[in-house]
Amino acid sequence: MAEVIEIDDPADPRVDDFRDLKNADRRPDLPGRKGLVIAEGAVVVRRMLDSRFAPSGLLGVARRYTELAEDLTARDIPYYRTTAEVMAEVVGFHLNRGVLAVARRPAPLTMDEVTEHAHTVAVLEGVNDHENLGSMFRNAAGLGAQAVLFGDRCADPLYRRSVRVSMGHALRVPFASVPDWPNGLDTLRRKGFQIIALTPNPTAPTLASAMTGERVALLLGAEGPGLTEEAMRATDIRARIPMSPGTDSLNVATAAAMAFYERVRIS
Amino acid sequence: MAEVIEIDDPADPRVDDFRDLKNADRRPDLPGRKGLVIAEGAVVVRRMLDSRFAPSGLLGVARRYTELAEDLTARDIPYYRTTAEVMAEVVGFHLNRGVLAVARRPAPLTMDEVTEHAHTVAVLEGVNDHENLGSMFRNAAGLGAQAVLFGDRCADPLYRRSVRVSMGHALRVPFASVPDWPNGLDTLRRKGFQIIALTPNPTAPTLASAMTGERVALLLGAEGPGLTEEAMRATDIRARIPMSPGTDSLNVATAAAMAFYERVRIS
Repeated sequence: MAEVIEIDDPADPRVDDFRDLKNADRRPDLPGRKGLVIAEGAVVVRRMLDSRFAPSGLLGVARRYTELAEDLTARDIPYYRTTAEVMAEVVGFHLNRGVLAVARRPAPLTMDEVTEHAHTVAVLEGVNDHENLGSMFRNAAGLGAQAVLFGDRCADPLYRRSVRVSMGHALRVPFASVPDWPNGLDTLRRKGFQIIALTPNPTAPTLASAMTGERVALLLGAEGPGLTEEAMRATDIRARIPMSPGTDSLNVATAAAMAFYERVRIS
Repeated sequence: MAEVIEIDDPADPRVDDFRDLKNADRRPDLPGRKGLVIAEGAVVVRRMLDSRFAPSGLLGVARRYTELAEDLTARDIPYYRTTAEVMAEVVGFHLNRGVLAVARRPAPLTMDEVTEHAHTVAVLEGVNDHENLGSMFRNAAGLGAQAVLFGDRCADPLYRRSVRVSMGHALRVPFASVPDWPNGLDTLRRKGFQIIALTPNPTAPTLASAMTGERVALLLGAEGPGLTEEAMRATDIRARIPMSPGTDSLNVATAAAMAFYERVRIS
């Protein structure tokens, strides 16, 4: 493990990237306009270390560095070690996960890059809830979907809470924006993706019967409003998850999980 | 709609059931030891009105009563109407859902009662997270599972946050404790339930191949520790959801949703 730098003074400028995290995304002085990418806790820090988001520094308590020792070996990153109290003062609240990593955003990936070898992808429209986005990435990673694509009006998957809820998989499952939404879906179609919209419509065919493509792109909208008619029209087929009457639609990340599961259930 | 009672004074004792909600479950003076059951927001209040949890009172702002007018017709419950400000003072925080209902807990149901006509049930062990429990009930309702059973060390499904996250379905999907855990599972077996434990073990058969019973009880443990060996031994078969290597287990409510989905996917 590389050199550890002890931090005793919460005002130390070397830990400025970790300062006042609740407000950090409002700071216009930071690169990338949307702020830094923060990983919280040993599990997520480990996933960041293993991703294209190269951390520029870590801040944590001794015990967490012991846990991470093997992962940190031979990496040339500053490890700021401090107490839980100083850490809370820097960050602005008490963090019981005890370790943070921070990374600058690399250049965004393109739709072509993230779909090149993919056979199951989620395409989201209007999903503006950070926790739902995080769960989406966790479910994609767990159930073998290879990419997440963003249409209009989605939240930032790299927001701290998304990354945390995703268990760090927002840093690992590649994502990209669909250019010229929703017309850019044509590009996916030309690559051989069957484009399926999930709909609550009880007269639509079931997902199990509709999902016939070798490659599948699943369109999901936010709970409540669902997909726009424009996005629906850009798909090949609309399919439903069999739901009980009189209930609400499923959470969007859970609905996506059903679709991912349908792809792998007998594998 | 029955008589509306205007509340101007936050100290009015008639709204004591809604007072200081964040601490209410610690109040030993309330019946049932675990406090009252609270429904938040028009959707959840509507589900409470339509459940075995008969509300003893409502507190809300005028606009929400307008929304609920049809549901409240001919019900003999006090409707306390007030402003958002007075409501926040009573409750102890600002509630943007604008309406609450409160009910006393009825006698618990028995495992026999809740499983009598069920063909898909979830059985939980050690699921002590209120949000996960809420999501479990939402997914059970949406995907047609008919009951939730509790083994040891589960949280209270009637806690305010569980009820809210469940969208009120914790009040509608019946639940009961398994007596003499895990031996009580034998009773389910004698009723013809196939008892399946979900396991992360990659050598186990898939859920899709293992789930052959007409009636199915799905055992799920908490993320991380999973099911105890004792509970595992009380099952008929252990089955897995196909997962990608190097990922975490799914959230317990999402894992349950996969299993519920497997039961209804071609319906």
